[in-house]
Amino acid sequence: MSATLSPWKKLSELCEKSDEAAIERFLEKMSSSETARVISRLSEEDRLRLFNLLAPEDAADVIEAIPESQAAEVLEEMTSEQAAAIFEELPSDYVADVLIELDDDVGAAILSKMDEDEAEEARMLMRYPTDSAGGLMAAEFLSFESDSTIQDVLEDLRDNADVYSEYNVQYVYIVDGKQRLMGVLRMHDLLFYPKDTRLSSIMFTHPLFVHDTASVNELRDFFEKHKLVGVPVINRIEHLVGVVTPAALEGEINKQKTRNFLKLSGIVGGEEFRTMPLSVRSFRRLSWLSMNIVLNMLAAGVIAFYQDTLASVIALAVFLPMVSDMSGCSGNQAIAVSMRELALGRVTPREIIWVLAREAHVGVLNGIVLGLLIGLVAYVWQGNIWVGIVVGGALAINTLVSVLLGGTLPLILKRLKLDPALVSSPLLTTITDMCGFFFVLGFASTILSKLTVS
Amino acid sequence: MSATLSPWKKLSELCEKSDEAAIERFLEKMSSSETARVISRLSEEDRLRLFNLLAPEDAADVIEAIPESQAAEVLEEMTSEQAAAIFEELPSDYVADVLIELDDDVGAAILSKMDEDEAEEARMLMRYPTDSAGGLMAAEFLSFESDSTIQDVLEDLRDNADVYSEYNVQYVYIVDGKQRLMGVLRMHDLLFYPKDTRLSSIMFTHPLFVHDTASVNELRDFFEKHKLVGVPVINRIEHLVGVVTPAALEGEINKQKTRNFLKLSGIVGGEEFRTMPLSVRSFRRLSWLSMNIVLNMLAAGVIAFYQDTLASVIALAVFLPMVSDMSGCSGNQAIAVSMRELALGRVTPREIIWVLAREAHVGVLNGIVLGLLIGLVAYVWQGNIWVGIVVGGALAINTLVSVLLGGTLPLILKRLKLDPALVSSPLLTTITDMCGFFFVLGFASTILSKLTVS
Repeated sequence: MSATLSPWKKLSELCEKSDEAAIERFLEKMSSSETARVISRLSEEDRLRLFNLLAPEDAADVIEAIPESQAAEVLEEMTSEQAAAIFEELPSDYVADVLIELDDDVGAAILSKMDEDEAEEARMLMRYPTDSAGGLMAAEFLSFESDSTIQDVLEDLRDNADVYSEYNVQYVYIVDGKQRLMGVLRMHDLLFYPKDTRLSSIMFTHPLFVHDTASVNELRDFFEKHKLVGVPVINRIEHLVGVVTPAALEGEINKQKTRNFLKLSGIVGGEEFRTMPLSVRSFRRLSWLSMNIVLNMLAAGVIAFYQDTLASVIALAVFLPMVSDMSGCSGNQAIAVSMRELALGRVTPREIIWVLAREAHVGVLNGIVLGLLIGLVAYVWQGNIWVGIVVGGALAINTLVSVLLGGTLPLILKRLKLDPALVSSPLLTTITDMCGFFFVLGFASTILSKLTVS
Repeated sequence: MSATLSPWKKLSELCEKSDEAAIERFLEKMSSSETARVISRLSEEDRLRLFNLLAPEDAADVIEAIPESQAAEVLEEMTSEQAAAIFEELPSDYVADVLIELDDDVGAAILSKMDEDEAEEARMLMRYPTDSAGGLMAAEFLSFESDSTIQDVLEDLRDNADVYSEYNVQYVYIVDGKQRLMGVLRMHDLLFYPKDTRLSSIMFTHPLFVHDTASVNELRDFFEKHKLVGVPVINRIEHLVGVVTPAALEGEINKQKTRNFLKLSGIVGGEEFRTMPLSVRSFRRLSWLSMNIVLNMLAAGVIAFYQDTLASVIALAVFLPMVSDMSGCSGNQAIAVSMRELALGRVTPREIIWVLAREAHVGVLNGIVLGLLIGLVAYVWQGNIWVGIVVGGALAINTLVSVLLGGTLPLILKRLKLDPALVSSPLLTTITDMCGFFFVLGFASTILSKLTVS
């Protein structure tokens, strides 16, 4: 019978039976994305029951499989002792990322129950912006003082084999007594020398490094230039504080892309899962929609202004939403290309003239094609060539307006320190709607006599 | 004087002077994203001149800094000998990615001029889809036969120090005489044994691996479950053919996100740079816009059908584009959330009922709020409560329709093997426009007498 049950119903049943062993086997078989899906579909009650049954290390595996915002929700349901025990099984950069999502007092309570060193590490990482080298680095790395020998490294590796199993240990960093970065060795360099060799005598001095404040773009440039599997991070007082890997960097770029994509589609805050509470989901979407309704009224005002013209040539009403939609589409294409080029650093916010020039070509060409198309449709449909000319001409000009505006808006907003992802599209739609309605109805009102003969 | 010149003008000047040393210094100072920007802004002529001046290894650095589609363009301008010399300086997986972008005969000509082994490697990699483990793996890795000793590894590392400097050499793979994967060792494991130890006696047998056909989602699940810095890839006949790193995987996910984002904004093919030829840019945008114009006509047909109603209550024309735009926005929010959850594997294409249930809540709540808002606006503006009821009621119902449709459309399209990124939004807009216009004008026509009293 249970073969037809969904996996979360099955897990819920196992939780009710408190069958720990079966639960572990069940979770073991699942991929982490399946785990994430199943956990998110459990009721709050079942989820609490599940985490009460799981050992901290198994709970940590589950927590790591789900998105940070959801991990925070789950951890908020637990006691701080439980959460602390789970955190101690997780890498400190992940802990810091989740702590940022938690309420401050909940986070502080959990930290106070954690091992002091690990809590301090997490606190240190939390102080960095998530999109800086400090926020992206792992605080787990191999470092030794310069008078250590290869033998010391060996012993350390042997003693901490367990802890190190999940480290990136391609590099060994050499520091002075004050944790200042002095050199680097690749693990395989150690193979070439006798075991009593001092690290200082064989290390590469002047190692490459980045500052903890380095941005995502600086890190991307670094890894494009230097094909390394990790770069050491130093803080303001030149202490070695962590290591950033290319995978951590790419992961952050990924997160930013997702956030921007969701924002551009009107999800305020750049995050929504369907398992989030209704109030959060509805509010995030509504806050953006309400802004849109206000902006929409501006465009509607243009139609209202020309209401008499429209009443005389009611056929034009058919084409107003078409002009609005097509212009919006053309403009959004240009917005997308600009957002992408800005993110890649292929265009700077100052190069508005260059973007205008490059978009003008496309705008003129596409404007002519689309204008002819819709003009022909309008002519054939309404049997009046002047209707075709008004509608086609308006769309042609408005297409040019839209791509010029769409191309430059993200650059302008960026210079004004506004978020292009959240604002570009509604602003564009409003302006291109206003222009589009004005072109159609304004043209029409000047040649009204020609339009009313059919 | 030259301080005010843009960097590409400066580079262009240096090219004209054929000042190789100055060019190298100039490029050396730039980050790779700056390089990409500068190269893309050069004229075709200057670019040719530049690559004629650069040594293959410097040219390779430049090529690696620019996007693959542009690298292909640049390489097509060169002789195949020149291109082959540059390819030999690049990792084979990158070469394969660029070759895929090239015309078949151009690619074949370049391959024929390359070192036979490297060409064969690139050909092998090209046969894999770019989003499979085979397409993402590096063909550069350390592998030794099982009867090799640690000393053999050492000698190989020493002999090939140059070649290996850009390898990920955290792991050493052990194979049998037929290249079948038998075991794995971490580089630091080698430190613990005498130099004459055979690898077979200390290797971890039953190493983790993936098949060359593994998908991006399978790889993501793998790396979420196993915190490794690389996974060996075996082919159909169990030969070890490459290694996939988490960074390569995240990089591919990144590319997919960008492609989907551009497609969803109406850039067919999922790629546009403003430095691409006008014909390509215009065509990619137009092909999507033309589809939109046809779909738009369907929606316009609904207005045309109710033309008489509209003529009697011209005030409604003011609100038609508002209803259209607001419904489109609500629907696109739901599309974005579904696209994201699908990509993450948080929802499967079969779970249409679940999505409907989760969206229904948001749709009813947001529909009521937006309907009240726009209804109030319409009432106050037009001084007729019935206009408010018609417009508000229509938007309320249409908001529900939009979010239900927006939420499920990506799932349905995915099940139909259509590309949700390219088709979801235009299809949604058409249907919600048709419904929206129908609700407004259909309602209106049933209570026409109440609307015409003002």
